[in-house]
Amino acid sequence: MRVITLTTDFGAADWFVGSMKGVILALNPRVQIVDITHGVPAGNLRAAAFALTASCRFFPKHSVHVAVVDPGVGGHRAALAIQTEDYFFVGPDNGVLSVALAREKIRAVFQITNEQLFLKPLSHTFHGRDMFAPVAAHLSKGLPIQNLGPSKKDFVKLDWPQPHRSANSVTGEIVYIDGFGNAITNISHEPLARPAESSGALFAKRRRLCSIKPSYQAVPRQKAVAVPGSSGFLEIAVNGGSAAAKLGLKIGDAVTFRPKAP
Amino acid sequence: MRVITLTTDFGAADWFVGSMKGVILALNPRVQIVDITHGVPAGNLRAAAFALTASCRFFPKHSVHVAVVDPGVGGHRAALAIQTEDYFFVGPDNGVLSVALAREKIRAVFQITNEQLFLKPLSHTFHGRDMFAPVAAHLSKGLPIQNLGPSKKDFVKLDWPQPHRSANSVTGEIVYIDGFGNAITNISHEPLARPAESSGALFAKRRRLCSIKPSYQAVPRQKAVAVPGSSGFLEIAVNGGSAAAKLGLKIGDAVTFRPKAP
Amino acid sequence: MRVITLTTDFGAADWFVGSMKGVILALNPRVQIVDITHGVPAGNLRAAAFALTASCRFFPKHSVHVAVVDPGVGGHRAALAIQTEDYFFVGPDNGVLSVALAREKIRAVFQITNEQLFLKPLSHTFHGRDMFAPVAAHLSKGLPIQNLGPSKKDFVKLDWPQPHRSANSVTGEIVYIDGFGNAITNISHEPLARPAESSGALFAKRRRLCSIKPSYQAVPRQKAVAVPGSSGFLEIAVNGGSAAAKLGLKIGDAVTFRPKAP
Repeated sequence: MRVITLTTDFGAADWFVGSMKGVILALNPRVQIVDITHGVPAGNLRAAAFALTASCRFFPKHSVHVAVVDPGVGGHRAALAIQTEDYFFVGPDNGVLSVALAREKIRAVFQITNEQLFLKPLSHTFHGRDMFAPVAAHLSKGLPIQNLGPSKKDFVKLDWPQPHRSANSVTGEIVYIDGFGNAITNISHEPLARPAESSGALFAKRRRLCSIKPSYQAVPRQKAVAVPGSSGFLEIAVNGGSAAAKLGLKIGDAVTFRPKAP
Repeated sequence: MRVITLTTDFGAADWFVGSMKGVILALNPRVQIVDITHGVPAGNLRAAAFALTASCRFFPKHSVHVAVVDPGVGGHRAALAIQTEDYFFVGPDNGVLSVALAREKIRAVFQITNEQLFLKPLSHTFHGRDMFAPVAAHLSKGLPIQNLGPSKKDFVKLDWPQPHRSANSVTGEIVYIDGFGNAITNISHEPLARPAESSGALFAKRRRLCSIKPSYQAVPRQKAVAVPGSSGFLEIAVNGGSAAAKLGLKIGDAVTFRPKAP
Repeated sequence: MRVITLTTDFGAADWFVGSMKGVILALNPRVQIVDITHGVPAGNLRAAAFALTASCRFFPKHSVHVAVVDPGVGGHRAALAIQTEDYFFVGPDNGVLSVALAREKIRAVFQITNEQLFLKPLSHTFHGRDMFAPVAAHLSKGLPIQNLGPSKKDFVKLDWPQPHRSANSVTGEIVYIDGFGNAITNISHEPLARPAESSGALFAKRRRLCSIKPSYQAVPRQKAVAVPGSSGFLEIAVNGGSAAAKLGLKIGDAVTFRPKAP
């Protein structure tokens, strides 16, 4: 049984996600369909890209990851299907897949143009249902990716902020605020495994925000702490509360990590 | 593997949907259960009816569509199971199924009365779990529909607004506003395929709202446009924004479509 | 096909639930995963415990119930796996499982310590994904529970309010308010099956709130009524409206049930 994952901004109030699942199951009744999230803010490519990046590698090999945040639907943007060493990625060529793909070993990039696979008539407003869902279902059944359309040299990369390292610090920014109010930065915590960097403090707006500790529980309740988050990035939290609310943090805020002097 | 779809106003905060799925899986462990939506506003039969209508035909043949928006639960309303050429429909006899059924070829209408199929004791407040879930599971396993109870001559039809065509225009109304703020009308866009009607404009409150174009991208960002929506109806959108918020549209607002003079 | 249920406070906006499902499916591709709810308010053990209690017994035997409301993740709380006559329960040892377990026949209690089953590196902030998901997947595939770690004598019990019975009344409190605004009490309605107690009235703050009737429909629209709720407890409702909003009820409010004099 193959897995198809769905990441969209379709929300939970309407029938859009259900329709995509109907189309998929009509083509492959035995697939496992998993919602990554449909709560991406409308049109927010960065939030969708981050959700996909943070979760896609936990799925079984050969899963088909579909991301449909598609403000340009019906216009000139291309449709992408990409095979990596472990997965397939399907969605509009607007960058929504690109952050996850930056960590994958890409094997093949194709443009989806094979109309025989689409629902007819193809709507101009809902390619999630009419194009991406059937294409994902066919891939999950083993259709070779080259049957989807011509191969493609490149794809759109989302502009994604990169942290800057200096001699004594790393400066990055907050890229996501989760439902608990944790503020996730773009500072990878892998380098912090080096002894000299395994502790230190995080600063924002010239203020010392908090120390870096291994877990939320290392500080008293309602106190701030930066922890190595489960997505691989330093994350600012308040034990038992919302860091975003309590510290007034928002996406785009610059943060600076200073390791403790050895 | 058969499919059972669920459309309810149970929301995501409580355990109601989960309980229904438990009951279904205890009877048919191999069924695929798909949520169409559980975000229907409490008791809103029209919203549920529209969600079901817009999505039910994308599911594989023989799927069992269950809709439980049931403000009259525990009272005198009957319970329905209807077989159409392609599907089963199960739910309270309050009109929630009737809009979808208006497009189906009905084969048989039954009242659900066979207590042997219900959970015991049957609650007076949650027939979704105690009656509709087990009945859907039995249908998905092939139980003949006549085993559910006596056949029934008719069922409740939801009062659904119909558009009015005159020589030079079609007047309808907004029947649904989706999560993106798109305002979906009850004006089918199939007639618009005729050349003389493939373009034109939409009016509301004696104001010209927007032109009709094939897609959102046909107008600049933040501009209004009417498009042939993915549900088969003319839909008022704002490219990259919410038509409902930007244009002050709400359910029930009258809209008039005037085709461009040939 | 086995069932794994998930009850969390992870919400619908992020990728946390999706990641858990990916981990589960990578280990057991054929399992049925059912969401009970992910809408538990952050860190609210009582709400999660009640959702699990109200729904767990509707699932097929041998289902694995996973509850992850885990404000102490990364600290000293233990991790639990408990086998009952009919089910497995998996989650942090903070009481979230205890209310459901109070109704089960417990066969074995184990502490989860077998690191070979965990994702590596084990995060300090997301044991739902790194510990509870793989453990549940292994249990669903038949791994003996004693392979998870050492047996355990006891587990944390959530402080749960108990109703008090006097000669002429039962006093309890509101323990949950559902998405419809129904106020669910901790007064079991099973004793009410006795003829002398099958009717009566509910009082709060020295005010008579409403009569007890079999269903919402026994009172006119927008009127208050107490009904034997589908979870086994007396529940205060407003026919066609929100009891919580209309009557100003909230969790913790005391309510007194007085049966009608025989």
